[in-house]
Amino acid sequence: MIVEILQPDAVNKAFQKKISELYKQLNANIQQLPIKNILQDNENLIFAICQEDDKLVGMAMMATYQVISGYKGIIEDVVVDENYRRKGIGRKLMERLLSEGKKGQLTEILLFSGHHRLPAINLYKSLGFVLKDSGLYTLKLA
Amino acid sequence: MIVEILQPDAVNKAFQKKISELYKQLNANIQQLPIKNILQDNENLIFAICQEDDKLVGMAMMATYQVISGYKGIIEDVVVDENYRRKGIGRKLMERLLSEGKKGQLTEILLFSGHHRLPAINLYKSLGFVLKDSGLYTLKLA
Repeated sequence: MIVEILQPDAVNKAFQKKISELYKQLNANIQQLPIKNILQDNENLIFAICQEDDKLVGMAMMATYQVISGYKGIIEDVVVDENYRRKGIGRKLMERLLSEGKKGQLTEILLFSGHHRLPAINLYKSLGFVLKDSGLYTLKLA
Repeated sequence: MIVEILQPDAVNKAFQKKISELYKQLNANIQQLPIKNILQDNENLIFAICQEDDKLVGMAMMATYQVISGYKGIIEDVVVDENYRRKGIGRKLMERLLSEGKKGQLTEILLFSGHHRLPAINLYKSLGFVLKDSGLYTLKLA
């Protein structure tokens, strides 16, 4: 099992398809942005993947941004193939993102998770994340 | 009262000081990143300010990022001078950010707010934001 950072030139059509299929396990209804587009000329996205043999079994990504209150990362779109869960893949992906965040001198990493996703929440807590006393609000534009 | 988008070359030492002072009303303990640094060569930050005569009375900023699930904006560091509240300045700043977000074809805008900040939350709700059924988790690195 190999965890690595996805490079834009590694994304061919077949790989895009693998990512797209895996992502559907997280959310089958969402309009996905194509990986090539979001990685191209984008130094603000760290895209971690996990492969076993030739199969994509997990991914997680962190977008970085700067505001007055800090240089932050927000982790989104964390998904592990349902046939490969409970093997520590999510943890390995998260650890890789955290290590990239430390290397990049982020001051804070944020993420949000549905209250019902207990295994994910336990993983995040075990990595040092704490629940903020804040509500998360969203406005959909598309 | 004028709401506008702050341009990097408008940030001189005096203006940096104004921003820094105003920001302290939101959080006096946080290590602030200098505006010049976060705006420079950064197409992913939209920094709205409100001035009355020569006084900076409010600001709000939105960082944009792309992940598989969308092209998103996250609004942070919204603050209105305590002597200028209840005048609609927060709303004007937010409306400007939302309008920039629509122009930039964001698919979603996120923000978080302490559960106790009722006037802010009411403002966000009145602009169409809805509370997500998710917890927000944070890991401080510095």
